Amino acid sequence: MDITSLFKMSYGMYVLTTTEEDKPYGCIINTAFQITAEPAKIAVSCSKDNYTFERLLESKKFGLSVICEDTPQEIISVFGYSSGKDTDKFKDFNYILGENLSVPLLPEYTIATIECRIVDFLDVGTHTIFIGKVEDCKNTIVKSNQMTYQYFHQVRKGAAPKNAPTYVENRSADLKELWECSLCKYHYDGDTPFEDLPDTWVCPVCGAEKSLFEKKS
Amino acid sequence: MDITSLFKMSYGMYVLTTTEEDKPYGCIINTAFQITAEPAKIAVSCSKDNYTFERLLESKKFGLSVICEDTPQEIISVFGYSSGKDTDKFKDFNYILGENLSVPLLPEYTIATIECRIVDFLDVGTHTIFIGKVEDCKNTIVKSNQMTYQYFHQVRKGAAPKNAPTYVENRSADLKELWECSLCKYHYDGDTPFEDLPDTWVCPVCGAEKSLFEKKS
Repeated sequence: MDITSLFKMSYGMYVLTTTEEDKPYGCIINTAFQITAEPAKIAVSCSKDNYTFERLLESKKFGLSVICEDTPQEIISVFGYSSGKDTDKFKDFNYILGENLSVPLLPEYTIATIECRIVDFLDVGTHTIFIGKVEDCKNTIVKSNQMTYQYFHQVRKGAAPKNAPTYVENRSADLKELWECSLCKYHYDGDTPFEDLPDTWVCPVCGAEKSLFEKKS
Repeated sequence: MDITSLFKMSYGMYVLTTTEEDKPYGCIINTAFQITAEPAKIAVSCSKDNYTFERLLESKKFGLSVICEDTPQEIISVFGYSSGKDTDKFKDFNYILGENLSVPLLPEYTIATIECRIVDFLDVGTHTIFIGKVEDCKNTIVKSNQMTYQYFHQVRKGAAPKNAPTYVENRSADLKELWECSLCKYHYDGDTPFEDLPDTWVCPVCGAEKSLFEKKS
């Protein structure tokens, strides 16, 4: 069993959102797909450790904003690597409430937005799959390709958040020295030895300062 | 509601396989994703109209072969646009039985193969989502990128098979003249007027002769 073969599977990236008592919540997922055409339904998988998870169970609706190659890094850092328990993830970004279900959407930074009413779900262990019936969907004015997981890894040099289904500990195990971001768990994999990076260098994924990296091996 | 916004979602492409009485069955899907890491589980969505569907219910196991940009067009044509009810889809291709679950796999034409035991499923209307626990997975010797649905549409000029969750009738509705392949439902969208194409021209998706195209508008 060579677990790296699972990394060959392709994914798009999304901000999954919902509300609780009129407050917006959201996180980044790479696991959303359309499962039926008539009517249009979408399945999303969400970790039970995500703060958004409990909100989805309560609200029974979700929004999806389709992340593109031009989506600002800050969107990915904030929605992918911090918790809505401690942070208002939306405070620095413009968002709207969907016309149909009033779920938070981020049309300024993404190429399409979708509103779904949750009609079923399936507990699959660490995660739950939610089935959403599409109640509205729109293209935004942003013209770009969807950011795929592959692009995120290869071009943006991102690592899977700890709650992602595709998260594997120490994915960079072949490096002799492993430096890990204590915030987002990104493993530094540049050519320059980590110690030689300038002090102004920051984590390319979440923006954490160099001093917040820990030597793991 | 602008249904084209759903086309912005990214997918990889796979040959989904199983067996019944030692005979191999399979079809192409674009809806597979890893849903948990511990243990590794994968969700796939399969149309109830696919002949493979009933076999999955019985066998309780499936194989996934990850289609790449170098996968021969014949694999896509045969597994995507014909039915295992009438055709032995495997007769012209080398395949192996997985070491762990004996599911058919196509390592000569794809970049990775995965064997899953079905541990749960969810009926979602026209399709069913199967949850598979990964029992084995391997990289093949083929080095290439996974074929994404976007690549399939834009480079290979493919159309969604009728049972795909993303199938939309008359996706090329903006064309004045619509010529449709009677076999795979591909809509011709080349710059040359359809009538001016040579008689030797064949459907780029399934290889059907030009005479098998029907004028729909």
